[in-house]
Amino acid sequence: MRSMQPVSVAQFGIGPIGAEIVKLLLTKSWVRIVAAVDVDPSKIGKDLGTLVGSDPIGVLVTPRLEQTAEVVCHSTGSRLIDVQQQLDMLLKGGSHVVSTCEELSFPLDTAIRESLQTTARSANVTLLGTGVNPGFVMDKLPLTISSVCQQVSSIEITRVVDASHRREPLQRKVGAGMSEKEFAEAVSAGKIKHMGLRESLMMVGSGLNAEFDQVSDERILPVMADRDITTKFLTVRKGEVAGVHQTISGKGGIAVSLDIRMYVGAAAPMDRVVIKGIPDVVLEIPGGVHGDRATAAMVVNAIPRVIAARPGVLTMDDIPISFR
Amino acid sequence: MRSMQPVSVAQFGIGPIGAEIVKLLLTKSWVRIVAAVDVDPSKIGKDLGTLVGSDPIGVLVTPRLEQTAEVVCHSTGSRLIDVQQQLDMLLKGGSHVVSTCEELSFPLDTAIRESLQTTARSANVTLLGTGVNPGFVMDKLPLTISSVCQQVSSIEITRVVDASHRREPLQRKVGAGMSEKEFAEAVSAGKIKHMGLRESLMMVGSGLNAEFDQVSDERILPVMADRDITTKFLTVRKGEVAGVHQTISGKGGIAVSLDIRMYVGAAAPMDRVVIKGIPDVVLEIPGGVHGDRATAAMVVNAIPRVIAARPGVLTMDDIPISFR
Repeated sequence: MRSMQPVSVAQFGIGPIGAEIVKLLLTKSWVRIVAAVDVDPSKIGKDLGTLVGSDPIGVLVTPRLEQTAEVVCHSTGSRLIDVQQQLDMLLKGGSHVVSTCEELSFPLDTAIRESLQTTARSANVTLLGTGVNPGFVMDKLPLTISSVCQQVSSIEITRVVDASHRREPLQRKVGAGMSEKEFAEAVSAGKIKHMGLRESLMMVGSGLNAEFDQVSDERILPVMADRDITTKFLTVRKGEVAGVHQTISGKGGIAVSLDIRMYVGAAAPMDRVVIKGIPDVVLEIPGGVHGDRATAAMVVNAIPRVIAARPGVLTMDDIPISFR
Repeated sequence: MRSMQPVSVAQFGIGPIGAEIVKLLLTKSWVRIVAAVDVDPSKIGKDLGTLVGSDPIGVLVTPRLEQTAEVVCHSTGSRLIDVQQQLDMLLKGGSHVVSTCEELSFPLDTAIRESLQTTARSANVTLLGTGVNPGFVMDKLPLTISSVCQQVSSIEITRVVDASHRREPLQRKVGAGMSEKEFAEAVSAGKIKHMGLRESLMMVGSGLNAEFDQVSDERILPVMADRDITTKFLTVRKGEVAGVHQTISGKGGIAVSLDIRMYVGAAAPMDRVVIKGIPDVVLEIPGGVHGDRATAAMVVNAIPRVIAARPGVLTMDDIPISFR
């Protein structure tokens, strides 16, 4: 990287995660930000630096991408169906795209995947969905550590997030302060769901070359508060919902289970991978990996790896990764 | 892999690690072993399966590679200068090569590296040095976990191995049972040294894009027994050498230190990575990753990744990895 020209990068979508990505891009000497796109009228025409709370950088937010960029960081939505056209347009414009779209981390919709694959290969560019979860702690990291094993019979992947110190929208999103009934209704309405858990499971299965005979439904259950918990934004009474507990698993030659709990007042946040095999392996990250910061990190750190990779739709299982 | 023809694999070098690789290759449905090479007259002409303690497989050990193989697993020596000609010949023969040669994990001899690079690219094949250490726990794994960071100021990488349950040669190799004077002499004579620590450090620096202003000498010190320790093979008295403590570090924009202790009676074997940055991250593997088994695993698990990679001399920082 040292001897390279800076990489020209555009930011597409300047919500909370997009702004976090921009702030990080601004610290990287090997990056030159050339454009910023958002449809929000209150952002259009503003200087991107000012908008994210830094000094002005002379790049104004536009409603469409009007500048060629080697790489576009894309952060506008969680669902493939909502972002497919944006991605298609960016790829056709000749940019590599690194996106935080959760469903893109391991695209399960074959038709959309094939369409994006064709576009990316025709344009000789690479498309990657990434983030900390999905994209790393519950898929790429377990896959990477499994490489020390001669045989694997099962992998248990657990993530516990203490939502107490996270943004208010996230605390609300996990259901903190709801009654059990409100929680159940919010789950039924699709309002409480960690996106990408099934994608993580299928990425792990694919990386291990393990064909699952059976994949469970995703279960979304409440974590009930066992005491009163007060955060900067809200108070949860004992017996109310503190957050969400979501699981999915696949069975076959290798059994893989994913278990994520995100709630206020979590006593022992952590990431853990437990592999039964030859040898057994336990990997732990006490305290766990911080979500929003790490997602921005993953997007930016992926940029040089995506430039070096082959064209097409890739997943985190297809590329090496490190801090850059 | 499921839909692929099995990969034709040859084993080059059938010492303890080579035999462990062969035993693992025999369990893989996606591998077909087509040849085995060793210069030891007592091995030549023997059936490879029988030689490693399994059923005969109809592949006889030969003193030279007489069969085309898509991939050669190479395990004959630790030093580049000793294996360069073998690697050159195997690459020219049109095989990808995955080698346990420690110095190949991150080749520091520019002339040898460039020569192998030219050969590999001309032959359109890939050469990778790998193993558990160097190759994974003190380089690839720290690099991978660093990807969650927005900024990194330092990385401390620690490995503690309890040699008590390892092969006798390894217990002897770390100096167990020596006096302090004998240990110092053995170090001076180059007989006690974990190979590849400098290579791991430089791989981490390179992966992080961190230019070190200063790289320390490797320090090799004894770990003294604080009590009598008896293993299956030997007894170490209190005050005698229990094993080896080796360190190296690099300073620059990012400070990286590697610290490995291998000794009999180690109370808390483990692998640990401590990153100071944004955010701080601690990763732990309680018990640590087993050396010999994991090295064979890493070689075999690397095979599909090397086939998928670009031609040339690669390091573990250039490829993704998982159990296969």
